[in-house]
Amino acid sequence: MPTPLRVGLAGLGTVGQGVVRLLLEDAAGLRARAPRPLVLSRVASRTPRPHVALGGAPFSTDARALIDADDVDVIVETIASTDADAALAASKELLAGAIDAGKGFVTANKALIAREGNALLAAARNAGTHVGFEAAVAGGVPIINALTQGLAANRIEWLAGIVNGTSNHILTAMAQDGQSFDAALAEAQRLGYAEADPTFDVEGIDAAHKLAILAHLAFGAPLDLAGVYVEGIRAIDAEDIAYARELGFRVKHLGVARRGAQPRVHPCLLPEDSLIAKVDGVSNAVQVHGHAVGSTLYVGPGAGAAPTASAIVANLLEIARAAPMALPAPAQAGATAPIGALTCQHYLKIPAADEPGVFAQVAEILSRHGVSIESVIQRGAAARGEAASQWVPIVILTNAAAEAEMRAIVAAIEGLDGVTGRIGRIRVADFGGTV
Amino acid sequence: MPTPLRVGLAGLGTVGQGVVRLLLEDAAGLRARAPRPLVLSRVASRTPRPHVALGGAPFSTDARALIDADDVDVIVETIASTDADAALAASKELLAGAIDAGKGFVTANKALIAREGNALLAAARNAGTHVGFEAAVAGGVPIINALTQGLAANRIEWLAGIVNGTSNHILTAMAQDGQSFDAALAEAQRLGYAEADPTFDVEGIDAAHKLAILAHLAFGAPLDLAGVYVEGIRAIDAEDIAYARELGFRVKHLGVARRGAQPRVHPCLLPEDSLIAKVDGVSNAVQVHGHAVGSTLYVGPGAGAAPTASAIVANLLEIARAAPMALPAPAQAGATAPIGALTCQHYLKIPAADEPGVFAQVAEILSRHGVSIESVIQRGAAARGEAASQWVPIVILTNAAAEAEMRAIVAAIEGLDGVTGRIGRIRVADFGGTV
Repeated sequence: MPTPLRVGLAGLGTVGQGVVRLLLEDAAGLRARAPRPLVLSRVASRTPRPHVALGGAPFSTDARALIDADDVDVIVETIASTDADAALAASKELLAGAIDAGKGFVTANKALIAREGNALLAAARNAGTHVGFEAAVAGGVPIINALTQGLAANRIEWLAGIVNGTSNHILTAMAQDGQSFDAALAEAQRLGYAEADPTFDVEGIDAAHKLAILAHLAFGAPLDLAGVYVEGIRAIDAEDIAYARELGFRVKHLGVARRGAQPRVHPCLLPEDSLIAKVDGVSNAVQVHGHAVGSTLYVGPGAGAAPTASAIVANLLEIARAAPMALPAPAQAGATAPIGALTCQHYLKIPAADEPGVFAQVAEILSRHGVSIESVIQRGAAARGEAASQWVPIVILTNAAAEAEMRAIVAAIEGLDGVTGRIGRIRVADFGGTV
Repeated sequence: MPTPLRVGLAGLGTVGQGVVRLLLEDAAGLRARAPRPLVLSRVASRTPRPHVALGGAPFSTDARALIDADDVDVIVETIASTDADAALAASKELLAGAIDAGKGFVTANKALIAREGNALLAAARNAGTHVGFEAAVAGGVPIINALTQGLAANRIEWLAGIVNGTSNHILTAMAQDGQSFDAALAEAQRLGYAEADPTFDVEGIDAAHKLAILAHLAFGAPLDLAGVYVEGIRAIDAEDIAYARELGFRVKHLGVARRGAQPRVHPCLLPEDSLIAKVDGVSNAVQVHGHAVGSTLYVGPGAGAAPTASAIVANLLEIARAAPMALPAPAQAGATAPIGALTCQHYLKIPAADEPGVFAQVAEILSRHGVSIESVIQRGAAARGEAASQWVPIVILTNAAAEAEMRAIVAAIEGLDGVTGRIGRIRVADFGGTV
């Protein structure tokens, strides 16, 4: 009988309860799949939850006590709090303590890794402490396992992911039902897919955390959350999605990381025949392009107690196998090209006065900046089935143009008398090799 | 400087050359990602290929010499041969020798694992020899890594995969261009996606090998290639695909393994809105359903020298990490339900004389067997834009019915005077939880 791996669980929210269920309810099955039995040894949570069965594991409200507990080999951290900073501080203290105490550590906390990972992961490696964070990105999808092990023979060239299920659910509802952003958001909140304060999800902040972690693992560069360019989905309306479809694209909120370039999170037009463009609802998907394997795609539930617990326990099993932590490649030399250096096609929706000449002016500005037009959609109000309105959008799909150039173009066009509002601009995916 | 992992390569066909390229051309990058340097120490191949640069590694035509070579830590086996039995025998001898010599072993040979795996893998585990075969299933897609590690916390309930790119390419061409099977096969052969003798691929034999391996890893049952139920795609025609589309389905050639049931390879109708139904061309895709994570999907190139080499070198890196081989769960108790016990919906295409009464007789047979009809498509020859023909197909989508029942039904219907030929029958996917 091999010695058990004794787990100390910090946090008993939905994810923590999912971990408890996984460890207790299928203990026999899990035992059959584990090189060492995983034993829930202690549970700590600020909020006692007497209704949750802990299989006899002693409960405490003091998570810090897990650090010194001599019957805990690995700390699983699932601390949730309405106060994100407090949760982050508590998680950080636990991880630092685990490293000092020589205990393993498994977390679902993307902020802990994305914000504090450089120092803490370095310390963990020096101390030989195994830190697992599969659950921090794409929930139950073992994308970190794929990046660090399954694809380890590859020089990763780029990756692109739908890593925020809330935004994907909202965009899917807008596309399928023509809902407005506000209506789709309200529905997502009603369904429990969006928080009362949806900022973290719809502004792309959550996705930026995950992308920073993926970029670190793919390219070996230090974690750099502040270096991720971020746009959310609030500016997208159902009309954009409909026009994009007419042009042969789907609109997804993507995190894109390319070797040597600034990682970026923003809405993106994807060719409708690419598989990742067809990933709808709350699903997450990450496409990874390696120099040898080419493109592979990983899809599954990006959140939820059970999928997250699945990833956490996979990390526990890896520790139980005594498998050394798979390290990312060290940083590559060479400066990172900022978002301003990005060159891609653009979708532009220009609110224009319904009068002759405006399009000619727009075309003149584009050509003056050396940007050619691939497609144009413009319909009079009548054709749009509306009462005559004072403006109709001019929708343009440009050929590839530099980000900086496009910003100047947008400013110039917005300065035209005949243009009546802000221009909607969506970048077109610049990566090929879609599966 | 950690001690290098010295690789002895057996076989210098396209895959072997891909491994050489990966080890030599990106040596610096690979070194940065590897805990120990991977060194190509020796190469053996029956056919000398002087034009292939080996980075100074000595070449021999005697693969067996790798077993005793004291400068080889791991044998990579990529032996290809027009004589499959000879290749299998050579691979088997090498693996047995590696186990005796205490060397690691990495192979892309699905036949070696599916046919000889039970004894050889048991011997390897007893000897503590690490055997890697990520490349044996779905090429560059790290599905074995996902099953044995990323999803290790799950009790796998079922998996379903498009694991033969040749068949998927043929079905895709038939669906997109309305090509006949023969024309699509000829095209696949012209493009190099199908062998001159396509039997291994289009009859489902290749897929059965891969499914046997996946089922073993998912459920822990012994490898049992002979126990896989197999149908190929020769019986599918473009008309079936068109009718299926009209009913809201795509036709894919799937390997399906469900816990406690006989694994099966056959054409399958998949709901058109399921993601795996949209995996076209030579891509492979495997959907895995775990009790905790739910459904996850893995997609990518199922063949090719570089993707296969990517999987092989990933196994080498795992050995270099000294990560213990991840074992499948031991076999579950309980007998396996044979294909005859399968219950699912069926698509039936019945060639019927263009005369009244035939449909009534068909319906009567179905109802006598207690099988109800979900949808029917029948058009007169005129409606099909053809000159009047002596028969028109009756296309029926049944509700769920047992396999054995359907066989009796098909026999009874084929016995009707008004039925002029064989009935085309395609099972409908019986698994839900599609991503």
